[in-house]
Amino acid sequence: MSGHGVTFATGFTAGAASAGVKYGRPERLDVALVASDRPCVSAGVLTRNEVIAAPCLLTRRHLEGGAVRAIIANSGNANACTGEQGERDALAMARAAAAHLGVEAEEVAVASTGVIGVPLPADRIATAIAGIGLTLDGWDAASRAIMTTDTRPKVFEREIALGGGAVRIGGIAKGAGMIHPDMATLLAFITTDAQITQKQLSAALTAAVGESFNAISVDGDTSTNDTVLVLANGASGVDVAQDAGAFASGLAAVCRELALAIVADGEGVTKVYEVRVTGAASDDEARLAARQITDSNLVRTAIHGADPNWGRILAAAGRSGARVEAARASVGIGGIAVFSAGVPASFDAGAVRAHFSRSDVAITVDLGLGSGTAVAWGADLSAEYVRINAEYTT
Amino acid sequence: MSGHGVTFATGFTAGAASAGVKYGRPERLDVALVASDRPCVSAGVLTRNEVIAAPCLLTRRHLEGGAVRAIIANSGNANACTGEQGERDALAMARAAAAHLGVEAEEVAVASTGVIGVPLPADRIATAIAGIGLTLDGWDAASRAIMTTDTRPKVFEREIALGGGAVRIGGIAKGAGMIHPDMATLLAFITTDAQITQKQLSAALTAAVGESFNAISVDGDTSTNDTVLVLANGASGVDVAQDAGAFASGLAAVCRELALAIVADGEGVTKVYEVRVTGAASDDEARLAARQITDSNLVRTAIHGADPNWGRILAAAGRSGARVEAARASVGIGGIAVFSAGVPASFDAGAVRAHFSRSDVAITVDLGLGSGTAVAWGADLSAEYVRINAEYTT
Repeated sequence: MSGHGVTFATGFTAGAASAGVKYGRPERLDVALVASDRPCVSAGVLTRNEVIAAPCLLTRRHLEGGAVRAIIANSGNANACTGEQGERDALAMARAAAAHLGVEAEEVAVASTGVIGVPLPADRIATAIAGIGLTLDGWDAASRAIMTTDTRPKVFEREIALGGGAVRIGGIAKGAGMIHPDMATLLAFITTDAQITQKQLSAALTAAVGESFNAISVDGDTSTNDTVLVLANGASGVDVAQDAGAFASGLAAVCRELALAIVADGEGVTKVYEVRVTGAASDDEARLAARQITDSNLVRTAIHGADPNWGRILAAAGRSGARVEAARASVGIGGIAVFSAGVPASFDAGAVRAHFSRSDVAITVDLGLGSGTAVAWGADLSAEYVRINAEYTT
Repeated sequence: MSGHGVTFATGFTAGAASAGVKYGRPERLDVALVASDRPCVSAGVLTRNEVIAAPCLLTRRHLEGGAVRAIIANSGNANACTGEQGERDALAMARAAAAHLGVEAEEVAVASTGVIGVPLPADRIATAIAGIGLTLDGWDAASRAIMTTDTRPKVFEREIALGGGAVRIGGIAKGAGMIHPDMATLLAFITTDAQITQKQLSAALTAAVGESFNAISVDGDTSTNDTVLVLANGASGVDVAQDAGAFASGLAAVCRELALAIVADGEGVTKVYEVRVTGAASDDEARLAARQITDSNLVRTAIHGADPNWGRILAAAGRSGARVEAARASVGIGGIAVFSAGVPASFDAGAVRAHFSRSDVAITVDLGLGSGTAVAWGADLSAEYVRINAEYTT
């Protein structure tokens, strides 16, 4: 994925700096800034974890204004479980960015990712922010500065043709893979030059997140800091009101590509599997089943070992909360029927193993009960995951 | 754990045989029978997975009569996802046991554990049942015959002094650890010579299971075959009506010991950790938080690696559905405060690591919100678990 990510849309620039937050190497970028040259409408989806990091609390308040036009982020420290000092530090980051950009602090969103329970080096970060040069090429540095355990940056963009002209949407993201001492933080920053109302933008983002960032699982843990933001500055001059659906699809596509890139780069991940559930009593129940199948350690290890153990898939669906009647259910792996309407199919185990040995695996479950459908994406569970996550924080 | 398990209570005998269900070694016991010499009242707790194995469906029906007096079980094959043939095979097992014992088929419970989706060798099992000799010493063979991936049998018994005399309670269990090609089946069979009503027995079992088998987690997956049964034959002549609480505690203790033995023998498990949540808004919320902490792969790997990464504990509580306010929460590890009322404590990381290096780890979380409490037990996640579960079924 090469491209311009957050600077693909007209009027956005980005940059990064090193504040020595944690890594202690001056060449390690750990502060990223993304900004629009004009006012924006904005929307966001933040962690639903009850333990919410200070930057998320601040960003939630600033999003209420609906006019966030810049994002300041750091890696190496989550600024979570840091008490009132943490709240002051998050606000200091917003103020430093606002001063550097000549905007109001309320127009800046703040995101952090890294170790929990350690005070932020707020002064060093403020100094670093003041030195960030914002450019069209800054997307690359920004995408790297937010990385923690990611092995590669996640960048995607797309131009969408609407009735009134073309609009651009682009984004950068960092992964949900977790490693000492970081938590499972997912950050995604998306910019667009579409002309759109805050209400439309918010609705499009909520829908897109449901089919992307909320449909992936690397290990089921959500973080204190998860943040997905979208800023729209209208610089294209193209109003999406007449083509709200096309804009929403474009935004969903950008979110989906970033989400899949996150799964594929999860800790110890060697393959990504798509679970497509059909025939559920409702879409909600289909979603429950699909996500449980991506969360099951037994399914994840079976896929890791290319083990055609379809009983684990069905059992995961059965404990998901969705209604399941084995006698009506069917399961397919890579297009091969392994269980058909309640009866084990005689299948070529070698062919299923061969499919499971691919880096992209496809599982289908038809519950045979209704018309509910959902798709979710998961990753295999490897011994390497355990090794990474069992290391010391100290 | 040595003892008599299911034959500790007066009037119960047990035995086992080899039917070559899967293992193909004549010395491998795979069919177990437990029986009372007189009528019983009975109660059970069966899997809540929507995909329910045929033996569980049959046992559920027979338990409705409240007079189950014998249990026939096999390992090596779960008789799950086997359609109508599976239902016929489960009934055939009940009938074979009933004929051997001279009781009604409705007085026999059936349990199976093993591979999913493969027809049972019902004829071989019926033949094996007819040859089982029931003895007081048969508890040992029975406890081994139900094992799948267990490395050792689980047996426990306890005598309880009541006002009217002593009653005995004993049980055997097999583990929730999962391995190719078996599913996560937990089986526990408990017998007692207490004189008790079906209603009291059922209430005592439900309470006991909530604090034992339902409070343990090896990897969060529930099986299609989970079965906990208790048979009470009244042979002690001691009516527990006046001491219902003492009987319930005794039953709970037997269930807890069997449950902890299951966790300790889980696949790849090197340590068991107890999570004690206090100060929750309610007991239900405390339970949600405690269980989420035992289910979290991040907590489990941190404990495996003796990593004092307390942020993972708090984040797991935060995503459990329980109300959590970080500013009021405290976390302790082995009695060492690591997070106190919203503020990271300065603690001796070496001491925490030393505690995490024990085989029994204690974690406390005080949510500081109310008086809800709960305890749950989990196990660390090791690379060995992944290795075991990634092997082929075929």
